[in-house]
Amino acid sequence: MRLSRYFLPILKENPREAEIVSHRLMLRAGMIRQQGQGSFTMLPLGKRVLDKVCQIIREEQNRAGALEILMPTIQSAELWRESGRYDDYGKEMLRIKDRQERDMLYGPTNEEMVTDVFRTYVKSYKDLPLNLYHIQWKFRDEVRPRFGVMRGREFLMKDAYSFDLDYEGAKAAYNRMFVSYLRTFARMGLQAIPMRADTGPIGGDLSHEFIILAETGESQVFCHKDFLGLPVPGESTDFDNDAEIGDIVQEWTTPYAATDEMHDEAAWANIPDADRLSARGIEVGHIFHFGEKYSKPMNAKVQGPDGKEHFVSMGSYGIGPTRLIAAIIEASHDENGIIWPESVAPFDVALINMKPGDAECDRICDQLYSTLSAAGKDVLYDDTDQRPGGKFATADLIGLPWQVIVGPRGAAAGEAEVKNRRTGERETLPVGAVLSRFAAP
Amino acid sequence: MRLSRYFLPILKENPREAEIVSHRLMLRAGMIRQQGQGSFTMLPLGKRVLDKVCQIIREEQNRAGALEILMPTIQSAELWRESGRYDDYGKEMLRIKDRQERDMLYGPTNEEMVTDVFRTYVKSYKDLPLNLYHIQWKFRDEVRPRFGVMRGREFLMKDAYSFDLDYEGAKAAYNRMFVSYLRTFARMGLQAIPMRADTGPIGGDLSHEFIILAETGESQVFCHKDFLGLPVPGESTDFDNDAEIGDIVQEWTTPYAATDEMHDEAAWANIPDADRLSARGIEVGHIFHFGEKYSKPMNAKVQGPDGKEHFVSMGSYGIGPTRLIAAIIEASHDENGIIWPESVAPFDVALINMKPGDAECDRICDQLYSTLSAAGKDVLYDDTDQRPGGKFATADLIGLPWQVIVGPRGAAAGEAEVKNRRTGERETLPVGAVLSRFAAP
Repeated sequence: MRLSRYFLPILKENPREAEIVSHRLMLRAGMIRQQGQGSFTMLPLGKRVLDKVCQIIREEQNRAGALEILMPTIQSAELWRESGRYDDYGKEMLRIKDRQERDMLYGPTNEEMVTDVFRTYVKSYKDLPLNLYHIQWKFRDEVRPRFGVMRGREFLMKDAYSFDLDYEGAKAAYNRMFVSYLRTFARMGLQAIPMRADTGPIGGDLSHEFIILAETGESQVFCHKDFLGLPVPGESTDFDNDAEIGDIVQEWTTPYAATDEMHDEAAWANIPDADRLSARGIEVGHIFHFGEKYSKPMNAKVQGPDGKEHFVSMGSYGIGPTRLIAAIIEASHDENGIIWPESVAPFDVALINMKPGDAECDRICDQLYSTLSAAGKDVLYDDTDQRPGGKFATADLIGLPWQVIVGPRGAAAGEAEVKNRRTGERETLPVGAVLSRFAAP
Repeated sequence: MRLSRYFLPILKENPREAEIVSHRLMLRAGMIRQQGQGSFTMLPLGKRVLDKVCQIIREEQNRAGALEILMPTIQSAELWRESGRYDDYGKEMLRIKDRQERDMLYGPTNEEMVTDVFRTYVKSYKDLPLNLYHIQWKFRDEVRPRFGVMRGREFLMKDAYSFDLDYEGAKAAYNRMFVSYLRTFARMGLQAIPMRADTGPIGGDLSHEFIILAETGESQVFCHKDFLGLPVPGESTDFDNDAEIGDIVQEWTTPYAATDEMHDEAAWANIPDADRLSARGIEVGHIFHFGEKYSKPMNAKVQGPDGKEHFVSMGSYGIGPTRLIAAIIEASHDENGIIWPESVAPFDVALINMKPGDAECDRICDQLYSTLSAAGKDVLYDDTDQRPGGKFATADLIGLPWQVIVGPRGAAAGEAEVKNRRTGERETLPVGAVLSRFAAP
């Protein structure tokens, strides 16, 4: 993409309304624009990151056996009356009347609707296990939306729902999502720590939050330092093997870890000082087992191998992709801007032409642009007539992992400079060697 | 994907509520489930088709220079008061109050919001042309939603918005979208005919609908048969070349074509009988040039090369991906079910094991499944214990382009049968030859 044809509205000044660094950097880097209270447009750069984040989530959901569907945003109040949550949910639920004065709502979550889909079609244990997920907009009418996309009112959510014959099956489904989440966050360059959590309005008896540590975290968390060294399950993890998956969950739930609400001072006191990690955390995922909480009132049951009818045992599993973008920035930035992990970077390379109009600079940049693009790299080519200082500042701010810089002096010598955004390391290379530098590993 | 692990709730009976063939087939093939009046869940098979459709739209929007963003579904009423459309829009607009009693609405379209994004950042003609699009849910509270996803209340829409300094620039932007639409629909196997159209609540002075011909079309259309032979612009079309793009538009707007509302009996009478095509049509896209209709009341202006400020000249360009799925089915089905064009098929191949449990059938199917998958084909492997007749009926109903059938007799001889869903042609091949049969062209 040529920057001269792109829409990247960089802000020079720090926006006053932004209280945390991710909000500030997303506004400054031209990723988002606020449209209303807790509501944001993803501008082209932000949209590209969102797509990368969603794609990783999707791949890991599919790998764990979940199937993608897409439910509507607007739901009938009737369904929520069936589960008993319509009145419980309070003012956070956006209630709507249509032209026929029917009660509707903008879904804050989808347990009821997916249970309705399930009970329509599934009648036998032979069709289980089943896990359906979608990535869809949600609306929660928070009293005080803030921190940009970290706590919005309209936000994107990946929510998965598992259906099983009994507790044992449901626990295995829960474990698969647990392991899938470990892989998902690790692929985004995040160290996420699963912590026992409160279940809140979703309900249930078993729940984990996935927390990443960041100074600006919304809550205090406590965990054993052992987490920092635990191996993340690899690509060859066999999600069909309940024992293997269970062992991974066991490993990741053995050291002490708790959010503020669930913190146990006595257990904490038993951990040696040097092994304690007390820090601020950001919730990036939340999984629940809630058994028959919805299947019973909504009459979602299947015939078991015993010939009898059983209410299915359910769980739900959420990740907020828009919030995740902010969390990644909180965990990975410096004073000059964002530092994207390669897996979610909006472009792989910033190609900077320091002097457009200089024949050699243009020729070398055109050549690098086409060879890098042909090699499958997403290149943002700064071909604008801004001054070099401004171009460097923009490249640092938007945080692409690599910068390839072509100036008149280097161009005359057939050379370009390659800069690593994270380490700041610079290397001068013959133009021909730049491509091999970016060959796939 | 193994069918035993998939969620494909086929209906044996014709659902009574479905009045048109696409609605009937989408329900029967387990693609959608109705959630409320004009509101649908896309089940896994439907979601896959939707993704394919959106990806083609996206590729062709990008090729024509449009940039993808993502605006929220909920909008502030304030913006619509600025343009004057808040009161005009009537009961089709879903109006909402939040917990602070602020007036909001579920966007039926996004001219106001995107104009607001534009005016915030763009101040100079040097940043033009600009075309921003998103693919996002819309809600229109129709009195009588019907025909399944063909006329829903909550539906997905790709809407693009162009901004230019003057009419000439805006016309070039309009032409690029016009040509992009020709390519988009052709890639989905559709013959779309652009017709001069009424502008309705969007407003403006220039507008084309893209109509595909289908017996079940919602409106009567009239056109010259010459359209059926016009060449669709190829991949090498240069969207930077206004003259080239203008010539294509000229070619595609010269023969007579009109919807019912725009029909001109006098012009029609001048066409020889044998060249007249009067048929039912389905609108699959609609493009508008409306100049300063929004930029003027909303004060969206840029400095021109003359140093003066100019209200930008705008257009908008819509395609409904959910409705498009129905239109494709209307245009491509037979008495046994859907016939997907390869470009939008949910899977490329149905692999049918006629006798799971038979060692040779299982071995050959496993081999075909892994080799075809490794070759990049999406395979739906029917490994269930349903009877062969039911498997064939399902495969025909869901309409994958190819069926590869493995039965005990063929398996013993090392052979499989390959069936083309569209033509019905069958071919018996050695198992080893099946893969080369599906090698990329």
